[in-house]
Amino acid sequence: MANRDRIFTHARLATLDPRLQGFGLIEDGAILVRGERIAYVGPLADIPAVDRHAAEAFDCEGRWITPGLIDCHTHLVHAGNRAHEFELRLAGASYEEIARAGGGIVSSVTQVRAATEDDLLRQTLPRLDALIAEGVTTIEVKSGYGLTVEDELKMLRAARQLAEARAVSVTTTYLGAHATPADYKGRNGDFLRDIVLPGLHKAREEGLVDAVDGFCEGIAFSPTEIRQVFEAARALGLPVKLHADQLSNLSGAALAAEFGALSADHLEYTDAAGAEAMAKAGTVAVLLPGAFYFIRETKKPPVDLFREAGTKIALATDNNPGTSPLTSLLLTLNMGATLFGLTVEECLAGVTREAARALGRLSDIGTLEPGKYADFAIWDIERPAELVYRLGFNPLYRRVYRGN
Amino acid sequence: MANRDRIFTHARLATLDPRLQGFGLIEDGAILVRGERIAYVGPLADIPAVDRHAAEAFDCEGRWITPGLIDCHTHLVHAGNRAHEFELRLAGASYEEIARAGGGIVSSVTQVRAATEDDLLRQTLPRLDALIAEGVTTIEVKSGYGLTVEDELKMLRAARQLAEARAVSVTTTYLGAHATPADYKGRNGDFLRDIVLPGLHKAREEGLVDAVDGFCEGIAFSPTEIRQVFEAARALGLPVKLHADQLSNLSGAALAAEFGALSADHLEYTDAAGAEAMAKAGTVAVLLPGAFYFIRETKKPPVDLFREAGTKIALATDNNPGTSPLTSLLLTLNMGATLFGLTVEECLAGVTREAARALGRLSDIGTLEPGKYADFAIWDIERPAELVYRLGFNPLYRRVYRGN
Ligand SMILES: [Zn+2]
Ligand SMILES: [Zn+2]
Repeated sequence: MANRDRIFTHARLATLDPRLQGFGLIEDGAILVRGERIAYVGPLADIPAVDRHAAEAFDCEGRWITPGLIDCHTHLVHAGNRAHEFELRLAGASYEEIARAGGGIVSSVTQVRAATEDDLLRQTLPRLDALIAEGVTTIEVKSGYGLTVEDELKMLRAARQLAEARAVSVTTTYLGAHATPADYKGRNGDFLRDIVLPGLHKAREEGLVDAVDGFCEGIAFSPTEIRQVFEAARALGLPVKLHADQLSNLSGAALAAEFGALSADHLEYTDAAGAEAMAKAGTVAVLLPGAFYFIRETKKPPVDLFREAGTKIALATDNNPGTSPLTSLLLTLNMGATLFGLTVEECLAGVTREAARALGRLSDIGTLEPGKYADFAIWDIERPAELVYRLGFNPLYRRVYRGN
Repeated sequence: MANRDRIFTHARLATLDPRLQGFGLIEDGAILVRGERIAYVGPLADIPAVDRHAAEAFDCEGRWITPGLIDCHTHLVHAGNRAHEFELRLAGASYEEIARAGGGIVSSVTQVRAATEDDLLRQTLPRLDALIAEGVTTIEVKSGYGLTVEDELKMLRAARQLAEARAVSVTTTYLGAHATPADYKGRNGDFLRDIVLPGLHKAREEGLVDAVDGFCEGIAFSPTEIRQVFEAARALGLPVKLHADQLSNLSGAALAAEFGALSADHLEYTDAAGAEAMAKAGTVAVLLPGAFYFIRETKKPPVDLFREAGTKIALATDNNPGTSPLTSLLLTLNMGATLFGLTVEECLAGVTREAARALGRLSDIGTLEPGKYADFAIWDIERPAELVYRLGFNPLYRRVYRGN
């Protein structure tokens, strides 16, 4: 029985298949699952009777199926939270007062350093469970709050453990170049040499890293410094991505494109040249409306420039304790539409097909196509737009991960 | 056993008791429940041993308890949704094109009229369940999509049924003066005379109405028309409230105050005179950040004027299919803080004590005080600010309604 094929019948499929128009709709569709993979996707009527009758059937009763959702940019592994800092700021405290009260990224670094790998896992699982409850089947998780070699590795190990603890796929990203710790203040070059680059090599040796990221910003690392990190990644054969142009335009998008990055993320200040460079390089624009909302940013990412250039657009939660304590990818869809003006189709593609592309995993996940993993979500909705339109409502009927 | 007292021990209490400062904190507190009511709230150590030992104990293990959450402004009973309209708008359709495609409030009116009372109940329960899952114990529900006498009554009956179907308290509001239906276009006076006022009397006769509301706006009803509705309510001994100053300043807040309204709601365009009149009259300012967010409004309600005047502030979802498809009161808290700059204390009071005041029910609910209903929420959090800070995460550990 365990090895029997499974067939999901009478579903309305939003395949996101790029060879079809729009959502890639198939009415009265079916998905045939063999092992962990999709063996067939298409009209129910077109499945050979022999395959249909041999399979264990699950009647979807007209419900919608989309690819499993993918959160392609998170800092999900962290310790503690920054609710108190949020409270102080609302009560009128200045950044300086908050810093004196131990707030800011320093507070997350301190708490991650004090935590064991198991602490990190235990604190992260409720956040992961919130994502999973909404049909998420793949997440990306970054390091970046350790900022010592050992603490960065600890974060990545905790990220790897998530995939053991839950039925979810985890892609890890090394983000040593996230912030400069206090003991390296004003000495980014030394920090890169002593910590970031050795940590990257160590993480690579241990098989803990799937991609390399950096934070390119006036308050973080310069384009020249990021270039060092990217060159090290290239030498190790690791793909790169970048926190780019969030608070100012340092041409981070173009830098990412120059290195053939999987994605450049945030992009509020990206210009036309950056958008075009990304389109040419196949670098996905990962937009993070949760952070935009939470820090009350007013400059929106240039969605029209991305559309004109043909840059692919993904959406992610950017879950992190400082600027986006967001654990709902459905809410992220609404924010993408409401705050950035993305269409329903762009939003849904942004957490499926384009998010898979942003992780370099489009050949395995992100659409409903034969040969891909059988990761999908079955929804109690009448049209895909409901996934984007509602706020704080979860219409998930059933989540299927690797066929189960 | 069923009649035995219950005691919730080792809790951190945010009582919202107005005689205490801020959240009304009590550390290592306890709540003694007798029947449906609170018999004692205070330090665990101060409970007489005889009461303590006679009661069935529930150890909260240091978790926080707040009053049960109250959503004091909703249009939760409705039929269908307007996801397609949302989709068309994002794709660039004009309001005219959407109206031609059957969109706008007309679409909700058509669907409510076509629905049976049971249809309305069935469609509303998932939305109610989403609120309940976050610790909501009381909701307000308005009519206003029927716009015939019978259809308005049908909505109110469905609202009453919610309290039979779930362990939740429901306050009903008659909102006949919500919009003018097509057959009365340009004849608001006739609509009031033929439908709104007769409907109000009928609803009152059937015991279906706890309060009376109106939509005072250029696109809806004038202050003079609202005055007629309020005078009818007054003659029937029913309290009033008002959708006021959402899109323009018609001095709706002052009008509401003049009639001693329980609340005036929305209030983006309210001026200092309106805020002061409300404070004097004891009319609560119910802020609705979900609608502000969803319609991309940029003018914020004058929180500083309310603070200066001493106007009480509540927060609610305004759940409705056209401008706030929001079913999370926790997300509403975050929006109140992030979009309107409310403090954590104002946010939490706004969905407990002040929301109870806005419903005229403060003597029974809204704070943890002896004599009130034992409606409360037990949370897996380290400080109340976490309820406001997080986005799309539900830390509810257990909900207690009327002691159970
Ligand atoms: Zn990030
Ligand atoms: Zn309303």
